[in-house]
Amino acid sequence: MAKVSIVMGSDSDLGIMSQAAKVLEEFGIEYEMKIISAHRMPDIFVEYAKSAARRGISVIIAGAGGAAHLPGMCAALFDLPVIGVPIHTKSLGGVDSLYSIVQMPSGIPVATVAINGAKNAGLLAVKMLAISDRDLLDKLSDYKESMKQAVSDKSDKLEEIGYEEYLSEM
Amino acid sequence: MAKVSIVMGSDSDLGIMSQAAKVLEEFGIEYEMKIISAHRMPDIFVEYAKSAARRGISVIIAGAGGAAHLPGMCAALFDLPVIGVPIHTKSLGGVDSLYSIVQMPSGIPVATVAINGAKNAGLLAVKMLAISDRDLLDKLSDYKESMKQAVSDKSDKLEEIGYEEYLSEM
Amino acid sequence: MAKVSIVMGSDSDLGIMSQAAKVLEEFGIEYEMKIISAHRMPDIFVEYAKSAARRGISVIIAGAGGAAHLPGMCAALFDLPVIGVPIHTKSLGGVDSLYSIVQMPSGIPVATVAINGAKNAGLLAVKMLAISDRDLLDKLSDYKESMKQAVSDKSDKLEEIGYEEYLSEM
Amino acid sequence: MAKVSIVMGSDSDLGIMSQAAKVLEEFGIEYEMKIISAHRMPDIFVEYAKSAARRGISVIIAGAGGAAHLPGMCAALFDLPVIGVPIHTKSLGGVDSLYSIVQMPSGIPVATVAINGAKNAGLLAVKMLAISDRDLLDKLSDYKESMKQAVSDKSDKLEEIGYEEYLSEM
Amino acid sequence: MAKVSIVMGSDSDLGIMSQAAKVLEEFGIEYEMKIISAHRMPDIFVEYAKSAARRGISVIIAGAGGAAHLPGMCAALFDLPVIGVPIHTKSLGGVDSLYSIVQMPSGIPVATVAINGAKNAGLLAVKMLAISDRDLLDKLSDYKESMKQAVSDKSDKLEEIGYEEYLSEM
Amino acid sequence: MAKVSIVMGSDSDLGIMSQAAKVLEEFGIEYEMKIISAHRMPDIFVEYAKSAARRGISVIIAGAGGAAHLPGMCAALFDLPVIGVPIHTKSLGGVDSLYSIVQMPSGIPVATVAINGAKNAGLLAVKMLAISDRDLLDKLSDYKESMKQAVSDKSDKLEEIGYEEYLSEM
Amino acid sequence: MAKVSIVMGSDSDLGIMSQAAKVLEEFGIEYEMKIISAHRMPDIFVEYAKSAARRGISVIIAGAGGAAHLPGMCAALFDLPVIGVPIHTKSLGGVDSLYSIVQMPSGIPVATVAINGAKNAGLLAVKMLAISDRDLLDKLSDYKESMKQAVSDKSDKLEEIGYEEYLSEM
Amino acid sequence: MAKVSIVMGSDSDLGIMSQAAKVLEEFGIEYEMKIISAHRMPDIFVEYAKSAARRGISVIIAGAGGAAHLPGMCAALFDLPVIGVPIHTKSLGGVDSLYSIVQMPSGIPVATVAINGAKNAGLLAVKMLAISDRDLLDKLSDYKESMKQAVSDKSDKLEEIGYEEYLSEM
Repeated sequence: MAKVSIVMGSDSDLGIMSQAAKVLEEFGIEYEMKIISAHRMPDIFVEYAKSAARRGISVIIAGAGGAAHLPGMCAALFDLPVIGVPIHTKSLGGVDSLYSIVQMPSGIPVATVAINGAKNAGLLAVKMLAISDRDLLDKLSDYKESMKQAVSDKSDKLEEIGYEEYLSEM
Repeated sequence: MAKVSIVMGSDSDLGIMSQAAKVLEEFGIEYEMKIISAHRMPDIFVEYAKSAARRGISVIIAGAGGAAHLPGMCAALFDLPVIGVPIHTKSLGGVDSLYSIVQMPSGIPVATVAINGAKNAGLLAVKMLAISDRDLLDKLSDYKESMKQAVSDKSDKLEEIGYEEYLSEM
Repeated sequence: MAKVSIVMGSDSDLGIMSQAAKVLEEFGIEYEMKIISAHRMPDIFVEYAKSAARRGISVIIAGAGGAAHLPGMCAALFDLPVIGVPIHTKSLGGVDSLYSIVQMPSGIPVATVAINGAKNAGLLAVKMLAISDRDLLDKLSDYKESMKQAVSDKSDKLEEIGYEEYLSEM
Repeated sequence: MAKVSIVMGSDSDLGIMSQAAKVLEEFGIEYEMKIISAHRMPDIFVEYAKSAARRGISVIIAGAGGAAHLPGMCAALFDLPVIGVPIHTKSLGGVDSLYSIVQMPSGIPVATVAINGAKNAGLLAVKMLAISDRDLLDKLSDYKESMKQAVSDKSDKLEEIGYEEYLSEM
Repeated sequence: MAKVSIVMGSDSDLGIMSQAAKVLEEFGIEYEMKIISAHRMPDIFVEYAKSAARRGISVIIAGAGGAAHLPGMCAALFDLPVIGVPIHTKSLGGVDSLYSIVQMPSGIPVATVAINGAKNAGLLAVKMLAISDRDLLDKLSDYKESMKQAVSDKSDKLEEIGYEEYLSEM
Repeated sequence: MAKVSIVMGSDSDLGIMSQAAKVLEEFGIEYEMKIISAHRMPDIFVEYAKSAARRGISVIIAGAGGAAHLPGMCAALFDLPVIGVPIHTKSLGGVDSLYSIVQMPSGIPVATVAINGAKNAGLLAVKMLAISDRDLLDKLSDYKESMKQAVSDKSDKLEEIGYEEYLSEM
Repeated sequence: MAKVSIVMGSDSDLGIMSQAAKVLEEFGIEYEMKIISAHRMPDIFVEYAKSAARRGISVIIAGAGGAAHLPGMCAALFDLPVIGVPIHTKSLGGVDSLYSIVQMPSGIPVATVAINGAKNAGLLAVKMLAISDRDLLDKLSDYKESMKQAVSDKSDKLEEIGYEEYLSEM
Repeated sequence: MAKVSIVMGSDSDLGIMSQAAKVLEEFGIEYEMKIISAHRMPDIFVEYAKSAARRGISVIIAGAGGAAHLPGMCAALFDLPVIGVPIHTKSLGGVDSLYSIVQMPSGIPVATVAINGAKNAGLLAVKMLAISDRDLLDKLSDYKESMKQAVSDKSDKLEEIGYEEYLSEM
């Protein structure tokens, strides 16, 4: 049964939003993924968001660009945490998406991550689930360790071969 | 029976939004005015927006600040025009409200006016109704004439008394 | 006889502005389309904007980029609604166009849509005309239904084939 | 034993950050509150952030303004969720704080709320804890209901007395 | 006979725009000052701008805020230089005014000065007139000298009395 | 003898700045063109700017990007008009250049044109020179006429062949 | 003999810039303080900046607002480090000052601090001088310790008396 | 023994940051270069920054993008100067990086250079070291001379061959 629901308003956001899915897979967390629009199918959307908790969803990750209402409208209807991913836009670079998601009114918070930060949205969902799941907490600790190692390896390589060769290999 | 519905998410926007009401009164157009939140009362909101056309509403004027979802969610549920008024915000000056209202996705337009531009929202509603109402069109012509006269009078006064005296009287 | 007039200051905006024309065609609404500049041909422009209502135009859709005066100057001379389309610009992304169109002074509203939002400008014109045209209102309802269906189909496909295959087909 | 830790880098942020504390009190959640600076006392800070999970803390709420490093540095050292509150700044309005908090690199998410959105930060912490606490979930449902009621009451009052009297009473 | 015409769309800009007048007075240049709106009185405006050169005007200084079309529309109708003064606005600080004035399309330049920079607009008009007026050029040289002296005097005073006393006297 | 001096701090700006030169050639105005840096060769720069009026220069056109000091420093040393051209920059799009050029302090105006607006800078120089040169004024009138004709021709073509064929020919 | 030179273009910046002086006094470093304008007194300015190193100045701290050229022009003429302090501006909040100071071209760096960050400019000068002055380095270490203590004391107080009493005492 | 330490959080910044290394090589200054992340390896980072002064490092140059904490966290732990290089970002162009680096709180300055300004960061480090190293000061003087010569040569070439040929050779 899915614990996390990943939603986006358009399949043009799927390339970015699939990064959240990948993180959840890596941590062995069941998820569902839907294209759903608060604007274009409000009835289906309302039914989806209201029933999510009942269906066992603990966290919703919602990605949207421009006048990005999807995360905020999820948060209005779903009592557990909603994570919002502002999608990069051509004209405003995603500042429009960011403001539309993060500047929520009092009473309806959305946990906002960076523009196009779907990977971090996945991780944040894991961290939320880890509050009551010690196994996940251990996995997060391992994950952090492997990030550290990856940077260390790169630094060692840079020290060894110098920046010119390093750059030529990139 | 009301032809225009003026809505806002919070009574803190009432000072601004009442300027739209005043314009409608000036043109003799029936209107209703509600505090209604797409975030805090989604069910009531959906019912409101869906039934508006049926109740005879031709135009919705929606004011909102920050992650201003109200105008866009009205536009998702109401088939006739929605006019959005971005409300000034303390930290971002209303740029957040503006982007959240104007940058709507394809298929769901919101007719956006200036930050705090509720008076112009009222006028825009009048202009929309005037498409099929010759009397209103005549009144708009008179209104324009009176605006012209007001500026002319000020310019004449300035020429007459000079800027120093003019400024001292302001 | 044309009911909607689509104008732009330069043929470089034609690719975007033709999206408004396509929507109007889809709804069976007569329109005219002109390249007309308030800056480069002010006399022709004034004559155009003043005579538009007389010629049967109910809505003007005006697209412009940078110091985008065309929509606002239309609104100064035409008593029925003017819809402004801010065109994307290279250096400022269209923020300049947006501010120049949306921040109109009291008395002269422009119904502003998203940057490059010509398709929505077309739809907004349809919504305005639908206030007094029940057939158009029905068509708008159908249009909304077909948008809903398109998103639903995509969501079903995503559920069926998964994000990896979906992305590989894009 | 505290489940939530509220931290800020300076006591000038206390007025805002105390709103998070009030929400937690309302929901009956134990919390601690500290003034702690990643810049001015890095050793104490590192010890604090590393030991938080061990001390039973499930969520950290960190408020900061300007080059707001505190939330991000918490997220680097604490494996459970960190909520970041960008504090309003005089010159840039809090855009600096917002970018410094939300634009975190891959691997280190911070759940960012609105500028000065400490109240929502408190609520978001409650929502996170409610994932594994059915009582809290029920309280959140009641909370939502009371928000709805408050808006309804205001709307009723507005309908009853009209905007002029409503405004004169504010 | 006036050589410079100072125009503004609203008397709310008069406090700022009168600074341009003061500079012209200081240099002994005849000027006229009008409140004139391209939006609210387009016919009067067109007649004004077209006849200006014929009436002996060599430079127009136009101040405007928000979607500031006045300077650009002057430049479309007047063949000699137009200086634009972006007026500070409450919500956007005058960035809207600045973009609407400076981002003019090819063929229609506006010589833009700083936000609220009416004094510099006056000086720029003097510099333009000084191209063919050696007396004005000499006065500009004197003006520069007196600016230099004023700064020097302040620096000497600071050196003499120290910053604490200097600040206490401000 | 050159009447206009076109300067830029780096040859990377030459592609843009040469558009100013082309306009001056079109109007038969003598000009000089230099790469000169207020930062990298301050002595040569000071000598250049101080001697310009003496050498017969009536207008300086200065292009610069980023912390664009060149136009402002010209204005500090040259008593006749300086036109500033903010050059587009990769990271900030030229907003940095625009602010550095237009936000000059009281006493030292720079006549600023649009980002990358070198063509308009050339035209503005012509307009300044036309204050005391009736032939130039006549040429400006012809220039305006030819701009009008060019737009008219495009509009006629659009009406004739429709937007689809027009777009396919672009 | 002064080691640090504090300069500003206008005495309106003195309130902010005196904070740099106070830090230098605290560390026992000799300094001079001048009001000097690259725009209004270019000759005096050039002489000042060229002779500074010869006069024993090791670091220049320059504060400026708007099109803030003073720090960059110092850096063009003085071979040792220049620290730039962007001063808050009314309309743009100091973003104009910041961009004009920090976005320097290749070859002419300015060490930029926060908007109104004169105190940090003083500290940065101390850090630069401490590279070759062990005593200063020790004092910096003490300074850091006292900052840590001040925050610790506040945190202890907060823990002791709670946020309500703490806030009531502020 | 290295006098300057160049650090960055990710090898994606190496292309830019290597420009700082090249400048240091040109001036014959020993340096080290590391990939080190305050977020992903906080313990190693703290150890690095605390020991830097002891290991003989006089200046740290730190490059970072987005919520760029690396320079500020270096400044919290290292008593000598830290130079911050804001790295260009795709969505926000580096404004996020710039604000996160430059807007440091009182007590912890970072000497910030332009977005992607690593070359200037290298030069600024040289200038800092030159405070107590006369040889370096002489080299800086030569460096400035060669910059001047390079611009002069370009200007001469432009004068000789004209802008058309110059552009065709670029």
